[in-house]
Amino acid sequence: MLKKVQYPEKPEKEELKRRLKAAREELFSRQMLLKEKKLPVIVLMEGWGTSGKGTIIGGVIQSIDPRFFKVSAVTEPTKEERRKPWLARYFEKIPEEGKFQFYDSGWMDEITRERLKGMDDAPYKERLNSVRRFERTLTDNGYLVFKFFCDITQKEQKKRISLLEDVLDTEWRIDKYDKWQNRHYDKCRRVFDEYIEATNTPNAPWYIIDSSSRKWAELQILTVINEGLKDAMQNEARNVPVMQNTFKLKKMPLLKDIPLNRSLSEAEYERELEELQDKLRALHNRLYRLKVPVIICYEGWDAAGKGGNIKRITGALDPRGFEVHPIASPEPHEKARHFLWRFWTRLPKDGHIAIFDRTWYGRVMVERIEGFCSENDWKRAYNEMNEFEKELKDWGAVIIKFWVQIDKDTQLKRFTDRQNTPEKQWKITEEDWRNREKWDAYETAINEMLAKTSTDFAPWHILESVDKKYARIKALRIVVEELEKALK
Amino acid sequence: MLKKVQYPEKPEKEELKRRLKAAREELFSRQMLLKEKKLPVIVLMEGWGTSGKGTIIGGVIQSIDPRFFKVSAVTEPTKEERRKPWLARYFEKIPEEGKFQFYDSGWMDEITRERLKGMDDAPYKERLNSVRRFERTLTDNGYLVFKFFCDITQKEQKKRISLLEDVLDTEWRIDKYDKWQNRHYDKCRRVFDEYIEATNTPNAPWYIIDSSSRKWAELQILTVINEGLKDAMQNEARNVPVMQNTFKLKKMPLLKDIPLNRSLSEAEYERELEELQDKLRALHNRLYRLKVPVIICYEGWDAAGKGGNIKRITGALDPRGFEVHPIASPEPHEKARHFLWRFWTRLPKDGHIAIFDRTWYGRVMVERIEGFCSENDWKRAYNEMNEFEKELKDWGAVIIKFWVQIDKDTQLKRFTDRQNTPEKQWKITEEDWRNREKWDAYETAINEMLAKTSTDFAPWHILESVDKKYARIKALRIVVEELEKALK
Repeated sequence: MLKKVQYPEKPEKEELKRRLKAAREELFSRQMLLKEKKLPVIVLMEGWGTSGKGTIIGGVIQSIDPRFFKVSAVTEPTKEERRKPWLARYFEKIPEEGKFQFYDSGWMDEITRERLKGMDDAPYKERLNSVRRFERTLTDNGYLVFKFFCDITQKEQKKRISLLEDVLDTEWRIDKYDKWQNRHYDKCRRVFDEYIEATNTPNAPWYIIDSSSRKWAELQILTVINEGLKDAMQNEARNVPVMQNTFKLKKMPLLKDIPLNRSLSEAEYERELEELQDKLRALHNRLYRLKVPVIICYEGWDAAGKGGNIKRITGALDPRGFEVHPIASPEPHEKARHFLWRFWTRLPKDGHIAIFDRTWYGRVMVERIEGFCSENDWKRAYNEMNEFEKELKDWGAVIIKFWVQIDKDTQLKRFTDRQNTPEKQWKITEEDWRNREKWDAYETAINEMLAKTSTDFAPWHILESVDKKYARIKALRIVVEELEKALK
Repeated sequence: MLKKVQYPEKPEKEELKRRLKAAREELFSRQMLLKEKKLPVIVLMEGWGTSGKGTIIGGVIQSIDPRFFKVSAVTEPTKEERRKPWLARYFEKIPEEGKFQFYDSGWMDEITRERLKGMDDAPYKERLNSVRRFERTLTDNGYLVFKFFCDITQKEQKKRISLLEDVLDTEWRIDKYDKWQNRHYDKCRRVFDEYIEATNTPNAPWYIIDSSSRKWAELQILTVINEGLKDAMQNEARNVPVMQNTFKLKKMPLLKDIPLNRSLSEAEYERELEELQDKLRALHNRLYRLKVPVIICYEGWDAAGKGGNIKRITGALDPRGFEVHPIASPEPHEKARHFLWRFWTRLPKDGHIAIFDRTWYGRVMVERIEGFCSENDWKRAYNEMNEFEKELKDWGAVIIKFWVQIDKDTQLKRFTDRQNTPEKQWKITEEDWRNREKWDAYETAINEMLAKTSTDFAPWHILESVDKKYARIKALRIVVEELEKALK
């Protein structure tokens, strides 16, 4: 692709200057509309070393109010970043609605570098799949994604490298990889080409930019961005295709068919609790040592007993190795981003356990039922959440998802008890009563959720919690079993 | 101190069990009051290696709802963390109001480790000063700070080390430092003692805990926390002493005495702009290489021309090396913490430039005038902000603070112009008009701010901005001069 691209002809100096001025003014005047339309924009700047990515971004942002953009300079992952899924550091930086995020450079650079270092076909293909899913879930959720590859010839690159190296204050800008690229220019071009072709999708196409001159490159980029913004701002309500599920799903029972008469005696409970907590304690040490990340998700009816259940898990864990994330309604800076952002930013380091008290599944429960997102949004979310969990699985995470089940009568009993017990009153709010009125709508939504998101790599487990003791022991047993499996 | 502490007598087994149960229940029942009273609580767990800090925290948190606490395991700073002020990683983790934050361990561990490695007296004293200021600004702002030192004998430590080392899954818990401590027990004790005495302040006193048995240690800690919470919850409106300024201050003019007739011709402007931006560009490369952090602060009247001024600075900078932070009203998670938290979390890495478009000085302007904080709060803030900047200075940062000055007539002209120009209307809101009505109150507050916070390490610079060109060139010149000074 790089070889075949036919660049537009570079205009004469005066013409270039005139057009650049016009393009800058156009972008400047569009930024407020962007803000009003709440469009988030991602600009991915990739390209050869010394192709001038930084300087070009420096030019483009001159036309944007500093309140509306951020630039992130991404280089090789740090030790800490390597302890998270590889996509995390990119996902963490996605912009809020109405704002620009420039990546200099991004995931292409990371992946092609690894490929050039000899990454095998299989993991490389996995990476490409990740990228396509990542970019698609962004654009599906309203992000504009511009991908630029700044192209220069081998000769030009060589010239630039020696110019920069000559000066002490700019010499740090040249790293070994730049020089290596120049010596292996053809090989790099093949790898870049392969990557670009594999990720040149309709929702996030590539633009190859003739970067022989900086101002000319800036003009080409501004033109693409201006056109893209213009089109996007004319779009009205955006319904995008809902991807078909391609993951293997486990068959789940309907809520109404789950027998809730299971229980445990106090003696059995005490005995099993001690035994399982001892096991879990030992497993926690082992997974810490082996650097296995663990993600435990709790969803369930109000008053189903999630809190007490979680406590029996954490009671066996070293507090330095786990974190509980209670998930309430999103704050403004969270709501202004992709719905998975606040989970991507709360992932555990490898060797650690994250427990989510309510999760991303709010998308297909409360957000669906209260209309906080569109029908198209929540219908797409099943697949988006499966893909998210796939990403976590590929990273090496153990994922355990619990649905804590009770019946409507039990809930009423517990609500009434909370209301009548002074120390428990804080646990019950008007909202709980309102949600209770929507029991049937929730039941439909939950059945659909369980059916569509119980993948073989992250299946749902039902915790029958009319007898809380039974549910706690079952949860502990599942956690112990899953960890034993993973640590074998 | 460690040697002299007289521990309470450890109760018999049954008595210990009974009292532990009661203490746990007490903490459990207090947590909701804490939430209502919006008290943030910091629990700093320090102590000997293998003194059981983690396990003790594990016990204490059993009595707290997972929504109300976090535990952070702090070890030696990472490479990334070393690029920020040393306090940053602790400040970043302070809890929201109504919540607990456990540090295992914290700043004592870091500092005493360095001291044991041979840190000189002078920097060590600086560290102790930092700590006292840090803890004081926390408690002054309503944080409860509990500091525990878990004490065990040399013999006990030796026994525990060999027990843990015997098992593969717990062997990673022992690091070289633990063993070193045990071999140099007396030396360590002297250093710990010295540190504890130097930081044993009335607002954040130390509690030395006999940690020969875990349950016994937990009971002692729970007792201290319960007592502390009880006392704190009885406190009503909290007015704390306002620290006297101890920094050398530069004399600042009153706003009304600043001559605003300065201007530049278009030709002078263009010439100087190019020259200064070229210089700044070169300086940016150099400070990046020398890893000097730079913090540029903009405050000024609405429509004074901050945005355009900032743009002339950033126009000369490589976008990979700077970030502009527009500061608006705090989001809920920001408001729930110390007012400096959202600035501590936005500091640049060394070698980078952070530009703040409005700053922490909002505390003594808008927050003072609108009553968003108490009088005691904003009166304390002058010193708190000076100390904050001192911390940044000691870290090695160049701090440049601009006040962008115009007169009331100029503001009216610019407001009217914005109102009448469609592309500029977004820049003017009802709030701007409301603030304008409070011009005199602001002027008083600003004069006081300039007088009290123009330290010799972070003085204010006035930018006369009736002629925006003049102000831009002056800003650029000051930035260039300050950087040249710092990079000499």
